Order: sequence, then C-alpha cells, then structure tokens
Amino acid sequence: MITVVLTGKMFWRPLLAAFSVATTALYFCSAAGAHLCSTASKGFPLVRNISELPQDSYGRPGLSHMTIAGSVLHGMKEVEVWLQTFAPGSHTPIHRHSCEEVVLVLKGSGTLYLASNSHSKYPGNPQEFPIFSNSTFHIPVNDAYQIWNTNKEEDLQLLVIISRPPVKVFIYDDWLMPHTAARLKFPYYWDEECYQMSPTKDEL
Amino acid sequence: MITVVLTGKMFWRPLLAAFSVATTALYFCSAAGAHLCSTASKGFPLVRNISELPQDSYGRPGLSHMTIAGSVLHGMKEVEVWLQTFAPGSHTPIHRHSCEEVVLVLKGSGTLYLASNSHSKYPGNPQEFPIFSNSTFHIPVNDAYQIWNTNKEEDLQLLVIISRPPVKVFIYDDWLMPHTAARLKFPYYWDEECYQMSPTKDEL
Repeated sequence: MITVVLTGKMFWRPLLAAFSVATTALYFCSAAGAHLCSTASKGFPLVRNISELPQDSYGRPGLSHMTIAGSVLHGMKEVEVWLQTFAPGSHTPIHRHSCEEVVLVLKGSGTLYLASNSHSKYPGNPQEFPIFSNSTFHIPVNDAYQIWNTNKEEDLQLLVIISRPPVKVFIYDDWLMPHTAARLKFPYYWDEECYQMSPTKDEL
Repeated sequence: MITVVLTGKMFWRPLLAAFSVATTALYFCSAAGAHLCSTASKGFPLVRNISELPQDSYGRPGLSHMTIAGSVLHGMKEVEVWLQTFAPGSHTPIHRHSCEEVVLVLKGSGTLYLASNSHSKYPGNPQEFPIFSNSTFHIPVNDAYQIWNTNKEEDLQLLVIISRPPVKVFIYDDWLMPHTAARLKFPYYWDEECYQMSPTKDEL
C-alpha cells in the first residue's frame, strides 16, 4: 500500500534556492515506501528531478530531510548527499561520526557548535561559528557538533555531503557526556526502513 | 606576488541559484595563489563565504571552476565539492575516473553522454540523457562520460561531488578510443598548482 501525505507546511516554505521543492507537492511517505528502497540502484532513473524526491521529518520536530543521492536508497558506496531544512529554533542532536562532512548553507542562517576534543574524555564547551546563506564549512572526522537554526524568522536550508555512507551517528545528551557514553543510532533515521533490505551493509 | 584579475564576463553570469558569485568580483588568480594552497587545511577559516572563493577557467574555454571543499586546497580526504559553470556550447572532455561522482544541476540544461562499457575495449556509442535545472544524477565508477551545455541561451551550472580526491582523470579523444589508450591527466587542472605542495598525495 502506498500512503500519500502532504508535506508539513509549518516549516517547509518555498525555496529561493536552486533546489525548489513545491510546498504542496504530494510525495510518498517514507514509512510506506518499501518499494522505493533500492537494492542496487535499480528501479531509479539515472537523472532524477529533485523536486519530486520524497522528503520527511522522520519524527524530528522542525526537520525536513531529503536524500538526494544515498547509499541504502540509491546504491551509492562512497558519498551521500542530503537536502535538509530546519525550521526556526530546530536543530540537530549533539553528535559525531567517523566520516567527512561538507555543508553548504543554501538559505537562512544559524550557529554551528563544534567541539574539537575527540581526544578528551568528553566534547566540552564547543566553539560557536555563525553560519549564513552562501557559506560552506566541513566537520572534521569524529568532532562532536550541533547545528541550530537560531534565526527566528527564516528556515535554515543545508546541502549536506558525507563520505562512508550509510552514516553511523553517535548522539550525546550534552557537551559533558563522555565520548564512550554517546549512543550509536544506526541505521540513522532516514536509512532505517531501506537498510533492512539493502545489500550495502558494512561493518561499523 | 598576488595577481588580481577580473572574472571572465563572457560566460560567467549572475546566478539565480543559491550560490551567488558576483560577476565583477575580484578574486585571486589560481596561477598566483601559491600561498592559498593549504598544507593541511590550515590558514582557511572553518566557515567560508562561497561568494569569495577563487574561480578560474584553468585554460578551458567556457569553463568556470570553483573548488568549494577540496583535497589539495583544504585538506579533505574523502570527498570534494566543486561549483562549475559551462558557457553555451562548452563541455567536459570525454573522460572516466575510478571514483563516485554526484552532480546537481543548479541552473540551465544540457546533455549527459554516458557509455557504460568499462568492460569493453572502448566506450562505444554513449547513451544520451537530458539534464535540467533542479535535476541530479550520478556517474558510475569508471564509466566514460561527457557533459555538454547544449542550451544556446543559458549557462549550465553544476554542483559536483566526488569521492577519493584528488581526482585522477583519464581522457579520451573520442568514443572509440580504447580504455587503455586514454591519457591520465593528474593532477587535474585545478589541482595542479597546489598538488606539488600537498601532503595528501596518494597512489593512483
């Protein structure tokens, strides 16, 4: 069965950026999209319209996530590309991963909190970096970090590129939580459904 | 010495996409930017304004290339991100590489020619795929391909993501050239200057 749902309008606004995704477009809900999982990038056209790709909050308030090119979804093995929108006040968890990540800010502004203390016992007090439309940054491997949309008026839209997909994320409750106590969330929210049927499983 | 040059206006137009780069902005020419090469991502701010990053044609007619996050330039080890603009009628060479590549079309339209015959002696007749604004596609590892801006009116702007940087490119004269005769171009155009002083050299 295919469930068709409307995009949550609360935080998904028309995009001024190149990546225009209709606010009222119908899309296939992830939870019902088993047939949309690729088992080896089969069944997907080579050239895809980004406007027509599925998006979901995956239960996280204020988030809209789209996998533009993914491991468990499209059979990518070395890179993965996401389009993410954060409503005002929303944010990622404090987390780390042992892959490279490059972020391009397509729209809005916010704050990157980055704790470059992967060799200490816990992340500690993070550095704050303002991020803004048309900026780019990368997250060093294994550094704990968090991205907030601190702009009360505007969505924060990011293009995120990671290596070594699918992503293995360790989540912290706060900046003083020991690295060893961070909880592994794997498969991650948007990989959960398709991971079970993916042939690209690899070791952690 | 730093040489300051004006961006070639012939093919670099104001961008409608999120990645706005001023048409008349001054930038540091790659050929004079030895001090801009990173030896381990030192000397670059973590958050960078994309509008202020250097861009160049690297001697290729109709091309404007910007490395948003790079191996020899910024110390990336697993992914690299480029912003490229092709003037009407311009194109990449016919080429292959043994890394993954994801492309997002930010602006314009064109044609992808893709020969999925890496197990034959030569690429052979390629398949043609129309590409268009807001579309995405990936290039399978080792497939020979070429991207043309076949739109006579508009620039074709691409965001390109590759794995395993710096890129090692094999160039073909035509689609019937044997894979074994394709010429290795390494370091590639935009990696040439900084590669000599980069600590990230690795095997081919």
